Amino acid sequence: MAAGPTRRRRTRSDGERSHRAILDAATRLATIEGLDGISIARVASEIGMSKSGLFSHFTSKQELQMATIEAAEAIYATEVVEPALERPEGRTRLEALCARYLSYVERGVFPGGCFFASTAAEWDTRPGPVRDRLRAVLAGWSDVMEANVRTAQAQGTLPAEADAARLVFELNALLHEANGHFLLFRDPVALEHARAAIADRLGAVRAPAR
Amino acid sequence: MAAGPTRRRRTRSDGERSHRAILDAATRLATIEGLDGISIARVASEIGMSKSGLFSHFTSKQELQMATIEAAEAIYATEVVEPALERPEGRTRLEALCARYLSYVERGVFPGGCFFASTAAEWDTRPGPVRDRLRAVLAGWSDVMEANVRTAQAQGTLPAEADAARLVFELNALLHEANGHFLLFRDPVALEHARAAIADRLGAVRAPAR
Repeated sequence: MAAGPTRRRRTRSDGERSHRAILDAATRLATIEGLDGISIARVASEIGMSKSGLFSHFTSKQELQMATIEAAEAIYATEVVEPALERPEGRTRLEALCARYLSYVERGVFPGGCFFASTAAEWDTRPGPVRDRLRAVLAGWSDVMEANVRTAQAQGTLPAEADAARLVFELNALLHEANGHFLLFRDPVALEHARAAIADRLGAVRAPAR
Repeated sequence: MAAGPTRRRRTRSDGERSHRAILDAATRLATIEGLDGISIARVASEIGMSKSGLFSHFTSKQELQMATIEAAEAIYATEVVEPALERPEGRTRLEALCARYLSYVERGVFPGGCFFASTAAEWDTRPGPVRDRLRAVLAGWSDVMEANVRTAQAQGTLPAEADAARLVFELNALLHEANGHFLLFRDPVALEHARAAIADRLGAVRAPAR
């Protein structure tokens, strides 16, 4: 009886560690070899686990892909979104979202750059739950950006007449180009260009409306 | 003797047709399934040719990939670059390059959007001749853009103080985001956003310097 709970705890803990190791490897691999490249066999070989061991965690490739996206969302939240959410809503938070994204690219959080830029480019023409989930993540990011543009407009720190959706499109364009260019050419000037262009695009900070 | 040349001509012509059919299929497939997805078996099955038939044209996957990039370059030249080269150098040609790119995305010249945006995202972390070739094509495109920015600056139709390389980075950001967003969300507003943002970024045309 005494050994039971201890053993169950150890088993659960080992299981959680394996689960995390699988998803860590899968998120990294997906940015290099594609989300379609993370077969159960490929991930198992990457972390030195048997295919049957991996099958005890994920019974299909799609289940592994969906869990990998969820794991990448958690990393994105920790690395990009949450630090920006500590900043005041509006223009300051919008700038922090952009800055954290560029820092996440620069620090190579994933070896193949932004997980979502990379996998969205891979899945944009493949209907199904994987594409639906990637669309939802990217749309959610744009929604957070747009909410902060609107708050900044209401606060008078961005021009009220600007088209908020178009401004978010332009900011995302600069963030994604920085990611793509930095990866392809390994040239940090892409990050400098993006930072300078974002600062220009947002313009000088104006005094908040009273 | 009489049949000889005729037969050789027919053979050569059949061979050219097959060669073209292979590369047509390969460029299209590469934008959907990736340049790594165009195995000889996959392309052969797509066009209903035997693997051994396809091997008579391309003896390795990498040879097929390199020829596919070359074929896509020819399509890109015809669809995007050459029509713009008919316009006067400088600002007019720069605007035509952007407009032709967005038209090429909108018309779905490739089913998976811009061939080079798609394959660069796939290969950016894979060293070798395929990545080197994709880098060269994208760098060549940016060089053409930048030459026209500089000409426009010399002609006084773009501000002389603008950083030409950064302006090209920003224009490419808008073009690539339009491509990616249009593909992922199937929403033509991405093209409208890009067109409006490019017009804003270039600013009102000023009278040429005398």
